[in-house]
Amino acid sequence: MKIAFVMGSDSDLPVVEKGVEVVKSFGVPVEVRIISAHRTPAEAEEFARNAEANGIGVIVAAAGKAAHLGGVLAAYTTLPVVALPIKSSTLDGLDSLLSMVQMPPGIPVATVGIDGALNAGLLALQILGVSDPVIKEKLKAYKEDMAEAVRQKDEKIRNQYM
Amino acid sequence: MKIAFVMGSDSDLPVVEKGVEVVKSFGVPVEVRIISAHRTPAEAEEFARNAEANGIGVIVAAAGKAAHLGGVLAAYTTLPVVALPIKSSTLDGLDSLLSMVQMPPGIPVATVGIDGALNAGLLALQILGVSDPVIKEKLKAYKEDMAEAVRQKDEKIRNQYM
Amino acid sequence: MKIAFVMGSDSDLPVVEKGVEVVKSFGVPVEVRIISAHRTPAEAEEFARNAEANGIGVIVAAAGKAAHLGGVLAAYTTLPVVALPIKSSTLDGLDSLLSMVQMPPGIPVATVGIDGALNAGLLALQILGVSDPVIKEKLKAYKEDMAEAVRQKDEKIRNQYM
Amino acid sequence: MKIAFVMGSDSDLPVVEKGVEVVKSFGVPVEVRIISAHRTPAEAEEFARNAEANGIGVIVAAAGKAAHLGGVLAAYTTLPVVALPIKSSTLDGLDSLLSMVQMPPGIPVATVGIDGALNAGLLALQILGVSDPVIKEKLKAYKEDMAEAVRQKDEKIRNQYM
Amino acid sequence: MKIAFVMGSDSDLPVVEKGVEVVKSFGVPVEVRIISAHRTPAEAEEFARNAEANGIGVIVAAAGKAAHLGGVLAAYTTLPVVALPIKSSTLDGLDSLLSMVQMPPGIPVATVGIDGALNAGLLALQILGVSDPVIKEKLKAYKEDMAEAVRQKDEKIRNQYM
Amino acid sequence: MKIAFVMGSDSDLPVVEKGVEVVKSFGVPVEVRIISAHRTPAEAEEFARNAEANGIGVIVAAAGKAAHLGGVLAAYTTLPVVALPIKSSTLDGLDSLLSMVQMPPGIPVATVGIDGALNAGLLALQILGVSDPVIKEKLKAYKEDMAEAVRQKDEKIRNQYM
Amino acid sequence: MKIAFVMGSDSDLPVVEKGVEVVKSFGVPVEVRIISAHRTPAEAEEFARNAEANGIGVIVAAAGKAAHLGGVLAAYTTLPVVALPIKSSTLDGLDSLLSMVQMPPGIPVATVGIDGALNAGLLALQILGVSDPVIKEKLKAYKEDMAEAVRQKDEKIRNQYM
Amino acid sequence: MKIAFVMGSDSDLPVVEKGVEVVKSFGVPVEVRIISAHRTPAEAEEFARNAEANGIGVIVAAAGKAAHLGGVLAAYTTLPVVALPIKSSTLDGLDSLLSMVQMPPGIPVATVGIDGALNAGLLALQILGVSDPVIKEKLKAYKEDMAEAVRQKDEKIRNQYM
Repeated sequence: MKIAFVMGSDSDLPVVEKGVEVVKSFGVPVEVRIISAHRTPAEAEEFARNAEANGIGVIVAAAGKAAHLGGVLAAYTTLPVVALPIKSSTLDGLDSLLSMVQMPPGIPVATVGIDGALNAGLLALQILGVSDPVIKEKLKAYKEDMAEAVRQKDEKIRNQYM
Repeated sequence: MKIAFVMGSDSDLPVVEKGVEVVKSFGVPVEVRIISAHRTPAEAEEFARNAEANGIGVIVAAAGKAAHLGGVLAAYTTLPVVALPIKSSTLDGLDSLLSMVQMPPGIPVATVGIDGALNAGLLALQILGVSDPVIKEKLKAYKEDMAEAVRQKDEKIRNQYM
Repeated sequence: MKIAFVMGSDSDLPVVEKGVEVVKSFGVPVEVRIISAHRTPAEAEEFARNAEANGIGVIVAAAGKAAHLGGVLAAYTTLPVVALPIKSSTLDGLDSLLSMVQMPPGIPVATVGIDGALNAGLLALQILGVSDPVIKEKLKAYKEDMAEAVRQKDEKIRNQYM
Repeated sequence: MKIAFVMGSDSDLPVVEKGVEVVKSFGVPVEVRIISAHRTPAEAEEFARNAEANGIGVIVAAAGKAAHLGGVLAAYTTLPVVALPIKSSTLDGLDSLLSMVQMPPGIPVATVGIDGALNAGLLALQILGVSDPVIKEKLKAYKEDMAEAVRQKDEKIRNQYM
Repeated sequence: MKIAFVMGSDSDLPVVEKGVEVVKSFGVPVEVRIISAHRTPAEAEEFARNAEANGIGVIVAAAGKAAHLGGVLAAYTTLPVVALPIKSSTLDGLDSLLSMVQMPPGIPVATVGIDGALNAGLLALQILGVSDPVIKEKLKAYKEDMAEAVRQKDEKIRNQYM
Repeated sequence: MKIAFVMGSDSDLPVVEKGVEVVKSFGVPVEVRIISAHRTPAEAEEFARNAEANGIGVIVAAAGKAAHLGGVLAAYTTLPVVALPIKSSTLDGLDSLLSMVQMPPGIPVATVGIDGALNAGLLALQILGVSDPVIKEKLKAYKEDMAEAVRQKDEKIRNQYM
Repeated sequence: MKIAFVMGSDSDLPVVEKGVEVVKSFGVPVEVRIISAHRTPAEAEEFARNAEANGIGVIVAAAGKAAHLGGVLAAYTTLPVVALPIKSSTLDGLDSLLSMVQMPPGIPVATVGIDGALNAGLLALQILGVSDPVIKEKLKAYKEDMAEAVRQKDEKIRNQYM
Repeated sequence: MKIAFVMGSDSDLPVVEKGVEVVKSFGVPVEVRIISAHRTPAEAEEFARNAEANGIGVIVAAAGKAAHLGGVLAAYTTLPVVALPIKSSTLDGLDSLLSMVQMPPGIPVATVGIDGALNAGLLALQILGVSDPVIKEKLKAYKEDMAEAVRQKDEKIRNQYM
């Protein structure tokens, strides 16, 4: 199964890329799209309606300002939608965060932190990992690598201040 | 031309009603709908695509929480969409306000204050009034009536404290 | 009918310009003014009182901080007033947004996003378009052009990540 | 010299009253008015233009939501304007506070806390007290009374927990 | 696979229950726990470490105030953790929301809206549904039922205002 | 050594009491005072200057709105000051929290959550516990009791939903 | 009578200067001080207690973060205190604003906008102007000059876009 | 007794350093660690469980975003934990502040201002100073030095503006 990254504008790409990279580094295929909930709503509908049939397992939706993309895609599919709020207005991304996370009852999206593309990618992998033991093993290794990196920094700074 | 009031949930009706009433009191026909951007997205699309052909001049879209309804309708029409944020979460309506007003470039909505249904109705009337001299005259009378009501209260309180 | 752009300070012009440009690109005449609700209140009153007689159909009012301009103009006219909050304080434009959008019952303004000048211009055009088929056609073409631009970017990025 | 209390709506009166009372208890004459910056703008202008000539020394302006009243009055007078933000929307009065306090350069208002009517009255008295030794003496006595009241409560609670 | 609901305090249960009910109505087994990230941290660790081995597929973590529970559980597992912020302080749940959604890079949680227990349950079901065709079918039916309920309300209100 | 609880107003007592009780339950002597940073500033100074000499080890300062009490006491002593923000305005206690926690460099206060009186008392006990083994043992027992209470609730709810 | 400008730190001077300049340009004597409510509280007390006797008519208090300076000075005097919140933390000055404006009942301060030093100076002048006809005349001339400056900019931009 | 500084990421070090420096300048030994509540939770537990035995008297925990570190350490120890919120997201540190200060009843942390590392260090010293007369004397000297520095700046600016 693929993980799809959909963003509302190509200006979101520099942020979103970190999520795409981590998914690719796990060997999971990606599909990357620019679809605007407001400027290309028909494409949004078509994409979401056919996502499952097209082999997509999880959708990551990235958008800024009044970030409707996650909700609009979730309206047309029962696949999990990871919502990635992007800071693209003067309001520090709080507008995007609230526009995504406060979904009405019945249509959830799985929101991550503002500009948190790496976490969006990892969450999508965790979702696939529920039923995919290969991904699950890689997630455990990834987690252990992160821990080891922190431990090394800790070792270094401890000695420096001893 | 009609003014349509679309709300995301029937729980919004007690708030929205003030807007419907003022429009009806002007003798302008209304259409009142419950359409959810997330639960009935196909109906939202169909409504917006056909609104102009169905004799609608302005759409008032009322919704709470991550209030996508205004944006979703605006995506499918070039009619003016008045966005009415409803307080329906713990966040005092700030989530609805930001989800509506911070629309991306190219797809505007005309946002009024939180729970400001009367103003949503009056704004829709002002928009029709640009080309409709009867509505325009009634708006002027409405404005003068409001002023007179304030003046009478002023008169009363002035004397009370003199 | 003209669309008037009124701003509280000439420092708002670099933001407001995008809205003026889109209106001019539609062939609709504009009037651009610097009028301060606080520093030239008599001019604000005079402008708003005479706007309709001077051939103005919609007023766009741009202001920052405690942005009273939209409300002050709306107090003296029944023309639709599009309120454009400008970020010009340390508070990211939230002060301007709330000062505009939270108008009391009876005197609405049509608020767009912070620094959203393009949308202010487009909303004014949509309002005129309700009764002007030429503007309406141009709005549809503009919308289709935006969609096409998104589709081309989508095409490009899809191939890049395939 | 009188202290004028102007409020945007008679619904503000229960809050504003505490300020009126304290001023009257100082023996300073008051004028109490209901004038809406948006619904009776001409009255607002007239009131502010003539305030000085009418024997007013300080104006207290109370308003909720997009609270423009303080700024609109300050635009037409050089008398000090005390701005009293009223909580009258879902937003806890933050909208009124920012709409008042964030005035643009050149036209200040003296803002007190949300629903802080007593402090608005006292501040107006302090302003008159700058040149009025009788008011100044009464302010000192008022301050000493407040201190004494706190001291008595302190005495009582200290013994209770000893 | 089971869906576990973990909450930081039994006072969260009345909110969380809606999520438990929807999962049970899908015929998916649940485990419901009260574990505090701060008061029973050892239990939190033990629960998270063994969750996968104990047949849990998704964890829903509900907490208020400085809501660390989601992050603390996610630290010890690679299962997807759905974070459900609860309003339990004076701050309307914004503290819980930010404490959950703004996770640092590497350890994501899937945050839903404040008090959004139904959506937390549905999101957990969507995650299991990625590889479970029975759940997926039920999700589609659930979605269609919601749409039908909205359509009936729409029908009713349309006629009422016609 | 005593723990002093100072509050700006007797209206804060119902909240503060939980902190006083926990300290007394540890057998640590308390002093409870009502001192206003603004209404009885001389008493505030005197209290803080003499606190150490009067056998006070930690000061808990509780105040609402523009909560200056913690900072004003900290200005006159080098004892640790625990700042307890009280919700006493329309702003949900955010004003008190920021007025306390954002102290300038050089004069810290130890801020706890809004209305978090129990935690203020426990933090004061932890501070005394650094050098007092009896308090430290009681803190450990208190912590274990809390954990046990959570475990019992967990046991109960687990069985209920099994 | 003098206008005193007191600031909590010399880092506030670049902002405060605009207020000092406008007061000096009116020919009113100033006193400029650096006094910290927290680092030199005794000086703050002494300054405020003696301000009236030292010929000061209005005090402008400028401070950032948990900005207690205005309240601390107001505690020791009945002179009007103009509170000028300075942006000096990461929080855009909102902390300073709330720490100043939300004063408890009985001790008002007159708050102006964040970094609004010019308005602080003008407000102080307006306060002195209540009983000083020379200052009052200069304020009227200043206001007319501002209006004229706006009118000239308006003239220029009107022609540019005609 | 030592003061430990624990930070969630080495990117926090440039901020935290000011606190470490002030503690070292007092001659109090420090331990500086990088431990992530989420990436190395086992190390966090181990550190906190053994802190007392390892001669640590106070723990300063610095973290950004959803800053759980303070709470996670406090869960495993009864030592006082000073929580230092770091600005490391787009949200100006408000997320970190709320994630730290709003701890649930029973497990307090002592929160200082955003990026307030110097104050975190001083607060930790004040806590040790409760029972350590040498530290207490140094704190008094430090306070007097700060006051003297302000007095000198005051002297200079007073003369400049006289």
